[in-house]
Amino acid sequence: MTIKPLGDRVLVKMEKEGEKTKGGLYIPETAQEKTQMGPVVAIGDDEDEITVKVGDTVLFDKYAGTNVSIDDQDHLILSMSDILAVVTK
Amino acid sequence: MTIKPLGDRVLVKMEKEGEKTKGGLYIPETAQEKTQMGPVVAIGDDEDEITVKVGDTVLFDKYAGTNVSIDDQDHLILSMSDILAVVTK
Amino acid sequence: MTIKPLGDRVLVKMEKEGEKTKGGLYIPETAQEKTQMGPVVAIGDDEDEITVKVGDTVLFDKYAGTNVSIDDQDHLILSMSDILAVVTK
Amino acid sequence: MTIKPLGDRVLVKMEKEGEKTKGGLYIPETAQEKTQMGPVVAIGDDEDEITVKVGDTVLFDKYAGTNVSIDDQDHLILSMSDILAVVTK
Amino acid sequence: MTIKPLGDRVLVKMEKEGEKTKGGLYIPETAQEKTQMGPVVAIGDDEDEITVKVGDTVLFDKYAGTNVSIDDQDHLILSMSDILAVVTK
Amino acid sequence: MTIKPLGDRVLVKMEKEGEKTKGGLYIPETAQEKTQMGPVVAIGDDEDEITVKVGDTVLFDKYAGTNVSIDDQDHLILSMSDILAVVTK
Amino acid sequence: MTIKPLGDRVLVKMEKEGEKTKGGLYIPETAQEKTQMGPVVAIGDDEDEITVKVGDTVLFDKYAGTNVSIDDQDHLILSMSDILAVVTK
Repeated sequence: MTIKPLGDRVLVKMEKEGEKTKGGLYIPETAQEKTQMGPVVAIGDDEDEITVKVGDTVLFDKYAGTNVSIDDQDHLILSMSDILAVVTK
Repeated sequence: MTIKPLGDRVLVKMEKEGEKTKGGLYIPETAQEKTQMGPVVAIGDDEDEITVKVGDTVLFDKYAGTNVSIDDQDHLILSMSDILAVVTK
Repeated sequence: MTIKPLGDRVLVKMEKEGEKTKGGLYIPETAQEKTQMGPVVAIGDDEDEITVKVGDTVLFDKYAGTNVSIDDQDHLILSMSDILAVVTK
Repeated sequence: MTIKPLGDRVLVKMEKEGEKTKGGLYIPETAQEKTQMGPVVAIGDDEDEITVKVGDTVLFDKYAGTNVSIDDQDHLILSMSDILAVVTK
Repeated sequence: MTIKPLGDRVLVKMEKEGEKTKGGLYIPETAQEKTQMGPVVAIGDDEDEITVKVGDTVLFDKYAGTNVSIDDQDHLILSMSDILAVVTK
Repeated sequence: MTIKPLGDRVLVKMEKEGEKTKGGLYIPETAQEKTQMGPVVAIGDDEDEITVKVGDTVLFDKYAGTNVSIDDQDHLILSMSDILAVVTK
Repeated sequence: MTIKPLGDRVLVKMEKEGEKTKGGLYIPETAQEKTQMGPVVAIGDDEDEITVKVGDTVLFDKYAGTNVSIDDQDHLILSMSDILAVVTK
């Protein structure tokens, strides 16, 4: 199953909380953390608004976006305005 | 009876919850699911805003749109802004 | 008495709830119905916004618009943005 | 005393509730009525917004506008956006 | 002390409630009155928005604007959008 | 320490309440006063919005702006939209 | 790990509360302080909106922005509209 986000939305894959990802990033697991990170796996078609690309790791508010399960894997659909920053290692 | 959505709205046919549809998609039935899916059966006339077509399966927030019954079949009228993504198999 | 809606508004005649109208349409009468239907009997002068015509049967949210009685007949003044769809048989 | 409404506002003379006016119109007096009517007696200077003229009888929401007493006669200052329709007999 | 209102604001001198002013106008003193009147004594510099002039008596909502005392005299700073009408005798 | 306000903001020095300032102005100290005054000591760079200059005494709502202490002196950062008027003696 | 803020956002490094920083600035630690300061360490790509540069010390509301931890150091992602002023010594 493939999900193509609409407009200024992007699809982000959610790693399990507190588990080290392949890329070595940690998803926040403490109560005081206000943000989460994850890799962009699909982007919408609003080229003016979309300033991230597939593969980017993005940082966003812990409560932003809408959860959706794809092939038993948690994902999040976010508007570009919910994305605070791009993270590189 | 035929329903022609106005402006940026689309009409989506709702499958019964938890039942396998002909196309093999499942409508979410668990409490933690935040989204629903369904096929677009009619679109509005706002060509700038409508970026889905009849036959597309769209993903949207569980509480989005307005329910309407057509020939005893549940449907939902959604604004394009309520539609998060197009789903393909 | 004649009512000419202003701007993007239309005037819709309300049938009695649960009674079969001449055109054979039923107005929703069950609690779970979220929409109502009725024929447009007058339209406003905002040609950019008005995309329905007199005689169209329109579908709208159950609680939309403002009730007004004309010659003992219930009517509703609706903004175009309250109208979800045009219904044809 | 003369009142000249500003911008997109109009001044409407309010008839006594439930009393037959000279023109034969009744102001709504029952609790379920959601609208009121009255003649326009002065208009603002915003020609783009003002689409009624002095002498028109206009229909508006029961709770719209601001009451003002002129020579012991109740009037209402309404924005054009509060006016739903023009009524003719 | 001189007060020059900014932008689309005007300064209005407030008469004592229920006392006859020199011009013969009464400020509303009954509870059901929703408006107040007073003379404009200074205007802002936003020429597009300011459509009253010094000396005009303006009508405005009873609770609009910000009170300011100038030389022990109550005044009110109002935005043009708070002013409903110009009153002439 | 120097503070340069951004955009349409200005920095105002706050006098002690109820104490006569050098310029002879009094800051309001009674409960019914709704406004405060103070001299502008720095302005932002948004030339379209900034219509006051350093040295102007400005009048603003009692609860407007954000307090900031500079060298043990209370100051207030205000948006231009918070400033009601310029006061001259 | 590097964080590149998006759009009109900037990344600010947060000093420990009440501790003297290298630059000699103090972060507010008293309850009545409404603002905080810190150095900008990264800026977004919206050149029209971003009017600060890396190295500037900025002043912002105590509760503005989103906290994010980078290499065990507290940072804050702020929109330009949250930044009140640039501070120089």
